[in-house]
Amino acid sequence: MKEADVVVVGGSAAGTVAGITVKRHYRDASALVIRREDKAMYATAIPYIFGTIGTPDNNIIPDSLLADSGVELMIDEAASVDRVSRTVTTKGGEVVGYERLILAVGSTPVHPPVPGTELHNVFPLWKESGLLERAQHVLGRAKDIVIIGGDVVGTELADECKKMGDVNVTIVETLPHCLALALDEEFCRLAEDRLEQRGVKVITGDGVRAIVGNGGVNGVELQNGGRLSADVVIVESRGAPNTDLAKDMDIKIGGARGVWVDEYMRTSDPTVFACGDCAEKFSFFTGEPSTLRSASIATYEARIAGANVFDLKRKNRGVVGVLAIAFGDFAVAQAGLTEKMAREVGFDVALGEASALDRYPDSMPGAKEVKTKLIFDGRTRKILGGQLCGGVAIAEMANILAAMIQNEMTADEVATFQMGTHPCLTASPMSYQIVNAAEQALTSMQ
Amino acid sequence: MKEADVVVVGGSAAGTVAGITVKRHYRDASALVIRREDKAMYATAIPYIFGTIGTPDNNIIPDSLLADSGVELMIDEAASVDRVSRTVTTKGGEVVGYERLILAVGSTPVHPPVPGTELHNVFPLWKESGLLERAQHVLGRAKDIVIIGGDVVGTELADECKKMGDVNVTIVETLPHCLALALDEEFCRLAEDRLEQRGVKVITGDGVRAIVGNGGVNGVELQNGGRLSADVVIVESRGAPNTDLAKDMDIKIGGARGVWVDEYMRTSDPTVFACGDCAEKFSFFTGEPSTLRSASIATYEARIAGANVFDLKRKNRGVVGVLAIAFGDFAVAQAGLTEKMAREVGFDVALGEASALDRYPDSMPGAKEVKTKLIFDGRTRKILGGQLCGGVAIAEMANILAAMIQNEMTADEVATFQMGTHPCLTASPMSYQIVNAAEQALTSMQ
Repeated sequence: MKEADVVVVGGSAAGTVAGITVKRHYRDASALVIRREDKAMYATAIPYIFGTIGTPDNNIIPDSLLADSGVELMIDEAASVDRVSRTVTTKGGEVVGYERLILAVGSTPVHPPVPGTELHNVFPLWKESGLLERAQHVLGRAKDIVIIGGDVVGTELADECKKMGDVNVTIVETLPHCLALALDEEFCRLAEDRLEQRGVKVITGDGVRAIVGNGGVNGVELQNGGRLSADVVIVESRGAPNTDLAKDMDIKIGGARGVWVDEYMRTSDPTVFACGDCAEKFSFFTGEPSTLRSASIATYEARIAGANVFDLKRKNRGVVGVLAIAFGDFAVAQAGLTEKMAREVGFDVALGEASALDRYPDSMPGAKEVKTKLIFDGRTRKILGGQLCGGVAIAEMANILAAMIQNEMTADEVATFQMGTHPCLTASPMSYQIVNAAEQALTSMQ
Repeated sequence: MKEADVVVVGGSAAGTVAGITVKRHYRDASALVIRREDKAMYATAIPYIFGTIGTPDNNIIPDSLLADSGVELMIDEAASVDRVSRTVTTKGGEVVGYERLILAVGSTPVHPPVPGTELHNVFPLWKESGLLERAQHVLGRAKDIVIIGGDVVGTELADECKKMGDVNVTIVETLPHCLALALDEEFCRLAEDRLEQRGVKVITGDGVRAIVGNGGVNGVELQNGGRLSADVVIVESRGAPNTDLAKDMDIKIGGARGVWVDEYMRTSDPTVFACGDCAEKFSFFTGEPSTLRSASIATYEARIAGANVFDLKRKNRGVVGVLAIAFGDFAVAQAGLTEKMAREVGFDVALGEASALDRYPDSMPGAKEVKTKLIFDGRTRKILGGQLCGGVAIAEMANILAAMIQNEMTADEVATFQMGTHPCLTASPMSYQIVNAAEQALTSMQ
């Protein structure tokens, strides 16, 4: 029987980082990752396969990340786990013993219940190499592409499709705005404006009643009565926690339908940990169950689970949520709560806004306006979230906000943040957006 | 007699932000900035006048920053202050009454004592419009440029001179490396390598004994015996706190030769505040006097002084120091202490390093390697500093480090930082440099 001190089931972002983290913290322990896929894919880079990076084979998480850390990789699928004998049995027939098990089995795709998804040239977008290759082949020859769903993947894919050539691309989003789950309305509008400038048609507040065609797709019927021609339809997928194995193992499932974990990322069996999309999450701000999922959150949890396998070193503080979306050299990003979310959960919201170019003086070539909105708790004055739109540095600016949020900085502390600036790389020290937005928020808190 | 509730003497970065901050925090108070220069210049953008933005007139801090905030601007120079009658008398003969005075008079240039600076076509580099116009005129026709001093301004200017055309540019730096006051040796070397790739000749560990010529400069003699041809010589300036007015006012001068201030930025006269280059500084890390000066530090202090004029709202926590340097699309940046500084002041240093591309997957076009080094206090595990080199987003990454330092995050907290990532904008969540460098540092702290 094969044995490893720590066996990780799943080899995407969470599983890979969990394995690496085990070896960092317990050098003498052996770690084995069991991964179903021959090649693991970066889920978040999937939209970029089509216009920018060329093929699914260019979107592979290098196995060297594991090998360089001394983590063994087994390409196989866990079929069952015996928690008494502490063994995993794989579909390939291997039996692997463990001291500690980490479940990092990710999520499974969920699609809106639209009739017609069985038609030829209708593709759900999911990290499956064969599917993506077929989609790419067809998209490359399409004239009319309809994308059902205008969240992150749908909007980024739309922009990528425009890069492939002279093609009509339409997003259909049932919510009042694209990206409405991630951003406040004014930032959604900025993103939609940019998509439209780049030639994408955006339909919001309307859904697809049916995908229609005769064998092959030829259009979609909208709920509000319109009809769009389409020779390819892409359906944006959402993920739901993959809990099949956990249920078979009879470990606890949480209220948000993920594998239940405690603050150390232990499941109801303390020798079994879980992290990533399959694991239950809670909000950093409210402690309530959260359905936020991302590769970044997955690796955060993996760094906790991996460090805790033999010694409880780290606690999960809950999901903050940090996100960036790019269309060419334009990007929107957010960290923490939006204004809408903050109001929904009952915070007494105070807002601050500031805009400035991301270089200085104004004559510096290539400067882009960066618009910033910060959300504070008016009672405690702590920063709850922020949104940015502008050029390519705003993803790291959102990470500045993330650091401020995780440290529960007050508006006064943000307003007296000691940042560095540079004429070619940032706003001027007089106009630094995050600081000035905090100063502006303070005027409404006095 | 003219009167304002708050009079600010000086209208560069510190004075401008001090005036704006007064109006933000005390809407009903009147604020007046007395500025000597007809137009105020961004000091840090001076190197970019020559190759990128064209003329000193393109490097102007807009007066609208003051006007839009309701701050009055007077172009004049404060000649004397009577602290008993609370009046400023200007060189133009105006007498201005104040309730609170803020000194933001900046620094004055100091040059190395090299013989020959009186020769024609030898220029100290300082924010003085006429001087910069003359230098630009001459630099545009130069064949052999020698820059004495390889700190931030000297290195950036060298790179800009290469952009002006086919010209030989040589930096002469007495320290063992360019930028040696700001960065650890390995990052200095990366910057020097980049300068050399861009065609700049770098001579370090050698000084200029004399600038030579006959009326006009024709070369420099090196301390180690060499000689360089030069038709233009630029001498990098350093600033020293401008304390003339403060001395005339008989207020206290500090141990680092700046205007002494308490933690609220009050001078020894509690109705007089000081901020920016003229004000005494102390280290965030040690509490000892600090000679760090920058526009960013100046505005940080101005936000404290301005908020405190009528009510002590904010405390100065001392200078962290955050800096970025750019040569085209390559940049180096740092926050807090370097390894060298940390060792010098007696910290038990623990280091962590990580490198990764700033986009993912590896096939993403335009990706640049970002090298990261973090410095921790091995005893308390708190982050003391960090250095980065890579592409244009690293200035904001240095600001993430700045936020972490100001919140005294431990290595474990940095390693479990919840960041956001994006294929076109950041490293992958598995390879995020700051987090992985903290994980690496932890392996030496266990």
